[in-house]
Amino acid sequence: MLDILWLLLCTSLVFLMQAGFMCLESGLTRSKNSINVAVKNIADFGLSVALFWALGYGVMFGSSWLGWLGTSSFMPNRDDPQTAILFLFQAMFCGTATTIISGALAERLKFTVYLAIAAWVSGLIYPLFGHWAWNEGGWLAQLGFHDFAGSTVVHGVGAWVSLAALPIVGARRDRFSMEHINPIQGSNLPFSVLGCLLLWFGWIGFNGGSTLALNDQVPGIVLNTMMAGVAGMITAALWSWVQQRHVEVGFLINGSIAGLVAITAGCDSFDTPIALVVGATGAAVMILTAQRLARLKIDDAVDAVAVHGAAGAWGTVSVGLFGAEIDNRLAQVGVQALGIGVSLVWAFGATWIILSLAQRFVSLRVSEADEAIGLNVAELAG
Amino acid sequence: MLDILWLLLCTSLVFLMQAGFMCLESGLTRSKNSINVAVKNIADFGLSVALFWALGYGVMFGSSWLGWLGTSSFMPNRDDPQTAILFLFQAMFCGTATTIISGALAERLKFTVYLAIAAWVSGLIYPLFGHWAWNEGGWLAQLGFHDFAGSTVVHGVGAWVSLAALPIVGARRDRFSMEHINPIQGSNLPFSVLGCLLLWFGWIGFNGGSTLALNDQVPGIVLNTMMAGVAGMITAALWSWVQQRHVEVGFLINGSIAGLVAITAGCDSFDTPIALVVGATGAAVMILTAQRLARLKIDDAVDAVAVHGAAGAWGTVSVGLFGAEIDNRLAQVGVQALGIGVSLVWAFGATWIILSLAQRFVSLRVSEADEAIGLNVAELAG
Amino acid sequence: MLDILWLLLCTSLVFLMQAGFMCLESGLTRSKNSINVAVKNIADFGLSVALFWALGYGVMFGSSWLGWLGTSSFMPNRDDPQTAILFLFQAMFCGTATTIISGALAERLKFTVYLAIAAWVSGLIYPLFGHWAWNEGGWLAQLGFHDFAGSTVVHGVGAWVSLAALPIVGARRDRFSMEHINPIQGSNLPFSVLGCLLLWFGWIGFNGGSTLALNDQVPGIVLNTMMAGVAGMITAALWSWVQQRHVEVGFLINGSIAGLVAITAGCDSFDTPIALVVGATGAAVMILTAQRLARLKIDDAVDAVAVHGAAGAWGTVSVGLFGAEIDNRLAQVGVQALGIGVSLVWAFGATWIILSLAQRFVSLRVSEADEAIGLNVAELAG
Repeated sequence: MLDILWLLLCTSLVFLMQAGFMCLESGLTRSKNSINVAVKNIADFGLSVALFWALGYGVMFGSSWLGWLGTSSFMPNRDDPQTAILFLFQAMFCGTATTIISGALAERLKFTVYLAIAAWVSGLIYPLFGHWAWNEGGWLAQLGFHDFAGSTVVHGVGAWVSLAALPIVGARRDRFSMEHINPIQGSNLPFSVLGCLLLWFGWIGFNGGSTLALNDQVPGIVLNTMMAGVAGMITAALWSWVQQRHVEVGFLINGSIAGLVAITAGCDSFDTPIALVVGATGAAVMILTAQRLARLKIDDAVDAVAVHGAAGAWGTVSVGLFGAEIDNRLAQVGVQALGIGVSLVWAFGATWIILSLAQRFVSLRVSEADEAIGLNVAELAG
Repeated sequence: MLDILWLLLCTSLVFLMQAGFMCLESGLTRSKNSINVAVKNIADFGLSVALFWALGYGVMFGSSWLGWLGTSSFMPNRDDPQTAILFLFQAMFCGTATTIISGALAERLKFTVYLAIAAWVSGLIYPLFGHWAWNEGGWLAQLGFHDFAGSTVVHGVGAWVSLAALPIVGARRDRFSMEHINPIQGSNLPFSVLGCLLLWFGWIGFNGGSTLALNDQVPGIVLNTMMAGVAGMITAALWSWVQQRHVEVGFLINGSIAGLVAITAGCDSFDTPIALVVGATGAAVMILTAQRLARLKIDDAVDAVAVHGAAGAWGTVSVGLFGAEIDNRLAQVGVQALGIGVSLVWAFGATWIILSLAQRFVSLRVSEADEAIGLNVAELAG
Repeated sequence: MLDILWLLLCTSLVFLMQAGFMCLESGLTRSKNSINVAVKNIADFGLSVALFWALGYGVMFGSSWLGWLGTSSFMPNRDDPQTAILFLFQAMFCGTATTIISGALAERLKFTVYLAIAAWVSGLIYPLFGHWAWNEGGWLAQLGFHDFAGSTVVHGVGAWVSLAALPIVGARRDRFSMEHINPIQGSNLPFSVLGCLLLWFGWIGFNGGSTLALNDQVPGIVLNTMMAGVAGMITAALWSWVQQRHVEVGFLINGSIAGLVAITAGCDSFDTPIALVVGATGAAVMILTAQRLARLKIDDAVDAVAVHGAAGAWGTVSVGLFGAEIDNRLAQVGVQALGIGVSLVWAFGATWIILSLAQRFVSLRVSEADEAIGLNVAELAG
């Protein structure tokens, strides 16, 4: 029962990450779009949990068909407490992977198209890759791929789907002008800071619960998680200070989250000083990626690809580089890179194909006029 | 100790529902009233917990006098850990029942009158009905009335008191004009979405803790709770889409909460697919009720009567209709209906009488001028 | 493992107090400074946890050198679960002590100077005083000083540092004019109410976890905590009503927090009716202090000194006055007063000296022009 209590607590904590993403993204976008962003953040939760219940949980954690696909445990019922709690905990993860996308594509993506992408991720992309990596019979798991709580499985997948959609959907119209990158001010940055702290709060459960049991490892996992977030924040703050002579709030927020994303794959296998290094370097990787993407005129409204994708990939590789119990580092780095590569091919590739096809038939983004008015009014009355 | 830990966790979760209601209601009201709403939401918590400690807990859970009234356990002290934790958990429920009223009557009810109503509910109405339904010696409990975590006991009672007060206090002056129903825009809808998510977070404890112990039922209860909220949200979203060609944020929020309210009575007795049905139909009942009340020119500022009263009543009846362990469905439906009827007579009836009398002597609502300026300024400086 | 689970839960709860302080302070300050305040609140968390990991935890809880200084347990690693969880829980306390200062000095203190003060507190002032009072070998602990969860150790220390800095840094330029005290309106009071509720939520863990184990005392401790907050709120509300004929939101918020601060020292040693008295009188002490400080033209932007310092000192003394297991009340009151005196000499005195010296070389506050523009723009772009 102690394990069940621990997972119930962790489920609750991870549930609150939905509120965290909502606050973060709503505050980072302009007030003319902030309600629309909030609505996407809550609607996707309903959709993804429903799909994960009907389909995804079974595909991901059901008995494996040749390592590729789960074939049991669909529609968990209350009469099996063990499955009920595992489903609840994992459903929050599916919701997390999905909601990452709403931030990246904020302020231009059509609501209905967003829901379609959310269904695509939570019904297909996430559970299948999750099966490969996290089902004990999954083929990546069998190869020794180690992604403890989902730097790649959860955060990477959400980021790669975003990355595929971003160039197809295109940048916000005010974002790039000729040679310039125009910063777009958030409407409510204290709300975003609240979001960051709620995410951090949830991460205690995200990583701490991924043992699926309350054992001696848990305090160390939470310790590593906390310190990596701290190291990410400090690194980003220093970077901001050196580069701009002030500490930008976006750096503090995204630095913290990048540190947390980076540690997620190996929070169970690093000594704590290493966890600090992984968090700090995760933040650096995030900043470099965000700046690179901006120069490439890829307009990620909250730098979600950099935070969840790049820092997550780095964290996944770092398990091979620095993990305490790794025998053959080179081989492990190879497996880790393979896992990342597969997640890219699958989540980025399949999404890119489907959206490229889809845009021949439907418009993925709102009209120019609607974008100018703002999506609060154009798409949704309050 | 495991049970105590579980109840401490659930108490904490349910406590945060106070923050949930505050964010929800403050965001759904106009900025000229949003602080006033927030103040009511925090002040009523202090008042209701104080009264529940002094009086209500004993009335509700003390040894029963003929099934009508508790006569012991007043003013719980720290030297009895068992009573301390039960009081804490139940005090949060009393606070929930009370705070529902602040939203329904927002933007016009006098602060002092609101406090008087809050005292009336938490000192008298709620504990007495609670005794009848939840004390093991209570007369409704003895008849077999089943309201597991309070669809009627908590949510219904708060809603019926609101329903009695609404026509007496009257609509906001801008709400209805001749034939028209004028929608009143909330001031901060992302804040309301945060409130909805905090309520949802709290509901894990609200329903999960109502076992008063950590047993094998708990994961299933939380599963049913989560899925009913999801089903309520999806139903309301589809309804909004079909009726208005867009998904209104109010539908998403209130649909989720209505699903959660509806499942509260029977989260321990439905199979999970049934929980989805109860959540979905709960949202439908909520929408039909909200639209009916608006046509009747009853101006519920946050649709609290529809969300907590109508969906709660439906959820209470559905225990008889769909509960897994019900032998005689007809008889059980009868008892459930009786319980709802009693809650109506008592909470609605007694409140209606007392407020009808009271309004002969004092004005229940703020002056027209104050309503125009807004209650932030008129009633309370920051 | 049950104790570890309890501490993990409490750590999570106390972590969220960071969000509580951020919302509270950001909402109570003007919008031109609200982002700056939020940034200080998150940046100091990173800094203080990093320093507490590297240095402070060992200084505070390492094996004692003559009762003055810890000399072991620096840089806790994941391989020692017991130390990991104790560090995590205590790191949140260090973060709390530090973040109090950001509110008091809001809207004028330079960001870099604030970070320096935060480092000063979390690296030196807090861990050393914490060692004296909370290390079992600490000299104040040996004398019998009883401050269960930190009315003085955490809240007092944060407040005294603020009190030392306030007159040196000076008042906000709009605050006092000739004979008048100009109230400065908060920008987002519902956000502050949310902050207050998040703090209250966190306090369940703050006091409840300070047993460092889940035992029979815990429910009573949480009960006392909850009731003292309620009593503080009601007292402040009545005070506001009597003095101003309306209930000001600031009184509700600060009354609640003052009640919680006051009970923190003795939540383990009062019977519950006494806890109500301590909470109520704590709020009264807070109000009198806040009004006195304002008359002295000491401009505490959120009344942090009154809330955390004065109510905390009163709560610390009240352990001697009303604690249930005290043999020699006079002697205990003396020890309690000694502890408070030492905290004042150390936290106030040392800070006053260092800042007095520092201001000869650097400017501690932003320029007049920057203060007029607001610190959001002047110090930090979003």
